[in-house]
Amino acid sequence: MSGTRNESDSMGEIAVPADRYWGAQTQRSLENFKIGREHLPPALIRAMGLQKKAAALSNQILGHLDTRLADAIILAANDVIDGALMDHFPLVIWQTGSGTQSNMNVNEVIANRANEILSAPLGQQKPVHPNDHVNMGQSSNDSFPTAMSIAAVEQITHHLLPALAHFHQALREKSAAFSDIIKIGRTHTQDAVPITLGQEFSGYARQAELGIARVKDTLPRVMELAQGGTAVGTGLNAAPGFADMFVSILRELTDLPYTTAENKFEAIAAHDALVELSGVLNILATSAMKIANDIRFLASGPRSGLGELILPANEPGSSIMPGKVNPTQCEAVTQVCAQVMGNHVTVTIAGSNGHFELNAFKPVIIYNVLQSTRLLGDAFRSFTDNCIVGIEANSARIDELMAQSLMLVTALNPHIGYDNAAKIAKKAYAENSSLKEAAIALEFLTAEQFDDWVRPENMVGE
Amino acid sequence: MSGTRNESDSMGEIAVPADRYWGAQTQRSLENFKIGREHLPPALIRAMGLQKKAAALSNQILGHLDTRLADAIILAANDVIDGALMDHFPLVIWQTGSGTQSNMNVNEVIANRANEILSAPLGQQKPVHPNDHVNMGQSSNDSFPTAMSIAAVEQITHHLLPALAHFHQALREKSAAFSDIIKIGRTHTQDAVPITLGQEFSGYARQAELGIARVKDTLPRVMELAQGGTAVGTGLNAAPGFADMFVSILRELTDLPYTTAENKFEAIAAHDALVELSGVLNILATSAMKIANDIRFLASGPRSGLGELILPANEPGSSIMPGKVNPTQCEAVTQVCAQVMGNHVTVTIAGSNGHFELNAFKPVIIYNVLQSTRLLGDAFRSFTDNCIVGIEANSARIDELMAQSLMLVTALNPHIGYDNAAKIAKKAYAENSSLKEAAIALEFLTAEQFDDWVRPENMVGE
Amino acid sequence: MSGTRNESDSMGEIAVPADRYWGAQTQRSLENFKIGREHLPPALIRAMGLQKKAAALSNQILGHLDTRLADAIILAANDVIDGALMDHFPLVIWQTGSGTQSNMNVNEVIANRANEILSAPLGQQKPVHPNDHVNMGQSSNDSFPTAMSIAAVEQITHHLLPALAHFHQALREKSAAFSDIIKIGRTHTQDAVPITLGQEFSGYARQAELGIARVKDTLPRVMELAQGGTAVGTGLNAAPGFADMFVSILRELTDLPYTTAENKFEAIAAHDALVELSGVLNILATSAMKIANDIRFLASGPRSGLGELILPANEPGSSIMPGKVNPTQCEAVTQVCAQVMGNHVTVTIAGSNGHFELNAFKPVIIYNVLQSTRLLGDAFRSFTDNCIVGIEANSARIDELMAQSLMLVTALNPHIGYDNAAKIAKKAYAENSSLKEAAIALEFLTAEQFDDWVRPENMVGE
Amino acid sequence: MSGTRNESDSMGEIAVPADRYWGAQTQRSLENFKIGREHLPPALIRAMGLQKKAAALSNQILGHLDTRLADAIILAANDVIDGALMDHFPLVIWQTGSGTQSNMNVNEVIANRANEILSAPLGQQKPVHPNDHVNMGQSSNDSFPTAMSIAAVEQITHHLLPALAHFHQALREKSAAFSDIIKIGRTHTQDAVPITLGQEFSGYARQAELGIARVKDTLPRVMELAQGGTAVGTGLNAAPGFADMFVSILRELTDLPYTTAENKFEAIAAHDALVELSGVLNILATSAMKIANDIRFLASGPRSGLGELILPANEPGSSIMPGKVNPTQCEAVTQVCAQVMGNHVTVTIAGSNGHFELNAFKPVIIYNVLQSTRLLGDAFRSFTDNCIVGIEANSARIDELMAQSLMLVTALNPHIGYDNAAKIAKKAYAENSSLKEAAIALEFLTAEQFDDWVRPENMVGE
Repeated sequence: MSGTRNESDSMGEIAVPADRYWGAQTQRSLENFKIGREHLPPALIRAMGLQKKAAALSNQILGHLDTRLADAIILAANDVIDGALMDHFPLVIWQTGSGTQSNMNVNEVIANRANEILSAPLGQQKPVHPNDHVNMGQSSNDSFPTAMSIAAVEQITHHLLPALAHFHQALREKSAAFSDIIKIGRTHTQDAVPITLGQEFSGYARQAELGIARVKDTLPRVMELAQGGTAVGTGLNAAPGFADMFVSILRELTDLPYTTAENKFEAIAAHDALVELSGVLNILATSAMKIANDIRFLASGPRSGLGELILPANEPGSSIMPGKVNPTQCEAVTQVCAQVMGNHVTVTIAGSNGHFELNAFKPVIIYNVLQSTRLLGDAFRSFTDNCIVGIEANSARIDELMAQSLMLVTALNPHIGYDNAAKIAKKAYAENSSLKEAAIALEFLTAEQFDDWVRPENMVGE
Repeated sequence: MSGTRNESDSMGEIAVPADRYWGAQTQRSLENFKIGREHLPPALIRAMGLQKKAAALSNQILGHLDTRLADAIILAANDVIDGALMDHFPLVIWQTGSGTQSNMNVNEVIANRANEILSAPLGQQKPVHPNDHVNMGQSSNDSFPTAMSIAAVEQITHHLLPALAHFHQALREKSAAFSDIIKIGRTHTQDAVPITLGQEFSGYARQAELGIARVKDTLPRVMELAQGGTAVGTGLNAAPGFADMFVSILRELTDLPYTTAENKFEAIAAHDALVELSGVLNILATSAMKIANDIRFLASGPRSGLGELILPANEPGSSIMPGKVNPTQCEAVTQVCAQVMGNHVTVTIAGSNGHFELNAFKPVIIYNVLQSTRLLGDAFRSFTDNCIVGIEANSARIDELMAQSLMLVTALNPHIGYDNAAKIAKKAYAENSSLKEAAIALEFLTAEQFDDWVRPENMVGE
Repeated sequence: MSGTRNESDSMGEIAVPADRYWGAQTQRSLENFKIGREHLPPALIRAMGLQKKAAALSNQILGHLDTRLADAIILAANDVIDGALMDHFPLVIWQTGSGTQSNMNVNEVIANRANEILSAPLGQQKPVHPNDHVNMGQSSNDSFPTAMSIAAVEQITHHLLPALAHFHQALREKSAAFSDIIKIGRTHTQDAVPITLGQEFSGYARQAELGIARVKDTLPRVMELAQGGTAVGTGLNAAPGFADMFVSILRELTDLPYTTAENKFEAIAAHDALVELSGVLNILATSAMKIANDIRFLASGPRSGLGELILPANEPGSSIMPGKVNPTQCEAVTQVCAQVMGNHVTVTIAGSNGHFELNAFKPVIIYNVLQSTRLLGDAFRSFTDNCIVGIEANSARIDELMAQSLMLVTALNPHIGYDNAAKIAKKAYAENSSLKEAAIALEFLTAEQFDDWVRPENMVGE
Repeated sequence: MSGTRNESDSMGEIAVPADRYWGAQTQRSLENFKIGREHLPPALIRAMGLQKKAAALSNQILGHLDTRLADAIILAANDVIDGALMDHFPLVIWQTGSGTQSNMNVNEVIANRANEILSAPLGQQKPVHPNDHVNMGQSSNDSFPTAMSIAAVEQITHHLLPALAHFHQALREKSAAFSDIIKIGRTHTQDAVPITLGQEFSGYARQAELGIARVKDTLPRVMELAQGGTAVGTGLNAAPGFADMFVSILRELTDLPYTTAENKFEAIAAHDALVELSGVLNILATSAMKIANDIRFLASGPRSGLGELILPANEPGSSIMPGKVNPTQCEAVTQVCAQVMGNHVTVTIAGSNGHFELNAFKPVIIYNVLQSTRLLGDAFRSFTDNCIVGIEANSARIDELMAQSLMLVTALNPHIGYDNAAKIAKKAYAENSSLKEAAIALEFLTAEQFDDWVRPENMVGE
């Protein structure tokens, strides 16, 4: 049989494609789990490579792993980390809930690649054995959650947080640029007292700023690693000092302040820290939904909407209505938000369903956390670059709406009381007149007093 | 001891308030489950009364329950059904997941009340015994889900469906009344081609109409009753024929077409039918959120919003801004929708977590289903009566927005092609001119052709 | 410039890869929406091809589209339907909420491919123009939701329902095969009265059977197509009779009973039918979660669990614990369930957020509906083939547990009353004796009576 | 008219019950919002009283409110704070989304009560006017969210955190008490390597400990108060210094470290901080679901389950199965968890749907946050007192299961390799023999080596 070679595991032999590094257990998973198309994300493959590299270094330094084997394992792990072996990770999310099959996938790929480096044939499991050497002192149950944490932390740190900071900065700049534009405020979607456009954007900026703080507050708990707990948290078969050595090496490799979990039983049996992280992503989605909704409504028109903002026209808007420009970035963002909110429910349900010493929903949890993280990071960047930075105020429209507002009457409360002020507003509305006309007609004040008291520029605070 | 009497169960004696009909097991639950304030809803208490009455009648007719005892039980059950004994059901939702404690509550109340009717003292459990007679041939495991179904079906039939029909009818009437009002359509929140206000409301009416159909499609599955399955679905200790007799009597008592569950194991171990019902309530919430959002935005203003609709002013809108009127009914409705959507997640999680022969999330499931049903019924009625029926079209505003719309250019597509039509719209927008001016300037057509081709009344279909 | 050609739209020219059929609008979307990796699923691409083919045939038959152009469009659409052009659909889900960019993608690909068939160069938009001919009488706003419905219905009909029927059949067969195995029932996760293993599986089978009925009940509403409504539901620019002709042709092409939506405004502005479909998928997830949880607990062991079922050992279970076999199919299934439940929340939120004449969450809705459908279909098939059909009963263990059960005492209720029966159970438990010993010691009955009354085979119904 | 008096607002007169302090706007809400039975929770009424008291003191000190009026307002507010006026707050959650009607309710009640204190008649709005004096310098839009924060913070601080600490402490004590009990671990619900019962409980304790940390991390953001922003965040009509004075007084009154929101626009237009708090409650629910599920399965039996734990028997378990004791506390807790998870979705949806300067889902947000907080606090206390503290280990059963475990073979991995160890386990399982017998038969080691290497007490770490 030309295209395959035989690999074996504790259940016997099985044919695998000759040009792939994976072994028997990966192949069995491929055949037994034909479910969906959702493969483990590249960030997670990379993290598994990092996990194996740090484990091999730890075992070597602690004197349990022969240096020649360790060196080969580390070289092979580097290939995984670099993404050079991505085609050798064919498994889907919908597999065993501990991620064992993917942990074995990386064990097998590294073992075969290491043996190749050592000029040994594939499939013989020697001199490097996937379980005894690559997985030395480890279990899927502590290795896979460790890789989950690493993948999440890297994607948060290197992708989401920079995008969020970029978004925050753009909102701050818009807030500053719009600080002198006084416009009508809206509460209950109805006309309200004045506000500056800069103030309105400052609220959005604050949401982003607090979002950054929330993400950062969560990271220390996500950075607590299960590694060293092995199968159930007791650390059986891991060398003394392995957990601490592992974390210390990983910090070196990644320049990120991982710690070893204070309680390994919790770190394997529950994933509360990832539920927490998902919850913070959920808040970011909540914030972004609010901001994107506001922007599309404030930019509605061009002639029959609110029309206060002008968005960049990036593409034709309609296949039937010529000349239409739509708030498409807002739509992409709000769709991402809906996805993230749903993903959070998935993570919550998965997180709540662990049993005894193991939560067996690990792949679906990390799949959703990484999808949400990726989507939010991408969306914040796209929204910022393709929309936020190009937003212009339609000053003529803003002024027109401001001038005719009935809610300026609120400025009269301290002078003539709420009830009289209400009468002015009602009269003006009923007669389609100006507030000033109505106020004078009702004899609550003089024209001079009105001009003195009702000044939008005095109504927006310092 | 004046204020209490002793009641007993298989665990021994316990003091209960002398003026209450409940017994030992109810009292134990009161003391062991001090969680929250959410009591079993009246609709469920009533349903438990109906269930006990139909069970007693069944046992009597089948010859297992002495007529004298049966008559007393039925009289007592009538008091439960009528709501006369509501103060005797003190338990909260957060109790045993089978509802056993509430099933025992109703057994105890009926037994004591029946004994009182038979001139026997309370607390002696004779001649009527709560387990042996009131619960005869039953288990909490089939009785409580039967009461859940009855409560849900009654509240759907007598409360939600009439309210939904009322809402539907009001939307249809508005659709008819607004059928000649041509207005600008909006897609992506942006100006689009014309539509009549009647057509817009016809979409809402159709949502309500389909909602009614969805609810009705679900009812037959909710009407499949677990009764007769007793503890695990096998019917142990129920008399032969009990399940069928029970259903036949219940149909008489309620005039509703209940059936006996084809498979009692499923009916006790899962609550898929209530998850389904909750899912339909979730769609109603989805529909109502859309409709209420539309109405509040279409009515936004009075001067700086879309301003096409005028809503009834039911109350002052602001404690600080005099004369403000807000879309408060829309706000109440959308809040109800958010609650119903969350409740659906609760019901889904609860429904998925049954184990072996019993789903032990019964009280929280029915609490959420009944809350959602009640809230939606109330909200549809309030929204209809306090908002929908009073909505007026602001024709002047609608005409003004219609006249200036750039999207009328779409009518030119079949005559001059999409690309040329797009050029007209862009030129008119850029120069703040009318479409007609731009079209003629670009020499794509004559003024006569424009007037002939661009007629809003021809753009809204038949 | 060798690797690209210029394409143009109403915003001007843009370079696209020379070997791709897509045009300017697709290219703009690619550049403006660098969000995520989630592309439109193949089932949706195929559905868009079907939609364009049926539209071209309709326009041709109605006399609006030249036969030569129509034929070329149809040939090109066939390539889309067959999946031959999958590489020409590069857009992600996170784009404009109407799917306009993907509708333009298919318009552009078909136009270019049709022009190629007609020996015209790419990029010239003639003789076949993407808007004027391929999109003739259509808008993204009615075409994309039509394709959404087609994709969902096809995947439900050809993928999910067969898998569900397969699952149902396997459960029924197990129920029959296990019909004589009497085992202990469990309620509240605790020992309860007997049941047969066949009865237990009959509950699962009933869940599957009702699930099939629920899916089928939903289809008629999903099959109501928006096509013919064009931009806002009025049908502007669609030929008279277009909607009916389209549906009639689509029924021919697919052999599925699509209908034209009774109200096109609803069909564009809301997606309640897909929220409903998602809700039914949510129930399937609820059911599958229950069944898979039961099976993994009943199969727990091999020595320290319940141990009543023996699952097929498909792969080694642990990278550290040799010889371990895990319920991995159950784990894959329950992870799918968690995903589907979260996806349902996404769809619900997206469905509730439409505004005015358009719901602008269309891509995220169909992405989630198709993912859930695909995953459930795959998971039911994998679960069935790799687990259900191979389940064996561990009869020795089942008998051992049955024999020692205290809950057999329930059979005594009709003979000696609930309270006395309870005393027996408590005594046996406290003294670690058998029920019979305790019953006789308490002098409630004789040994003969016990043997006569307490027979598990009489406790499981007919 | 004896039973009513007239009250008036800017819309005119309306009759209210003579024995109630509320005024016209409360009465209008009562009549216009007949939706549900969910009233504002007492904790929120109290918080509104605190808010009004602190506002009156601030206005007095800042010299804007006459001392005589201020004193009366403060006395009346004290009555609200103490709960003495609870019957005067009849409104439901399903009202205007800003809480305006409830803010007016408290304004009206305090005004009338203050006037009564000042010997003025009810309903005259003098000398104390509900808007001009009680609501001085305030808007519903900043006052109601301030009260929301206060209510949440008080209930978290005084109810949830103590209950959570109590739960944590009980788990720690159990962990210590069970530290020497070696038992079989379980992963994938299947037999795994040993663990101590103390270690298992230490994982639960750690979940509780981290939960406490998560709640505390969130509080500072919840403590940022909107007060001083008035209607839209600009502070219009609030006295200079009002926001700071208010917070300083509130800190005095409550001894809690509230701060004034850095950005009032965000604090009124969004409720991200409460979405965050709800998210933390969601994690607590996730943790509690895991713990309660474990406990009920570990305590399953009494004879046919895992049987390792013995739970307190607080009540009879079954209305049909005598002597049954069920894990009812676990069931109450898990039902609470399902509710909290659903409530979190409600809060998320509500939080994402704010528009412009106001989030108009305020009542439903605080209703859900307070319900979740209350339920979790109550449930943790009930679970602790009625279950956790009384849990006993069934040592005989634990030892029996431990002795027969096949997974002890894992201890041989470092000595004979994973593959050989797997062969031993498989042989022992197939032949129903002991590991030792199988190991010796396979000649992988001697009996002495087996005894030396396979010691459960050496497999559970230090």
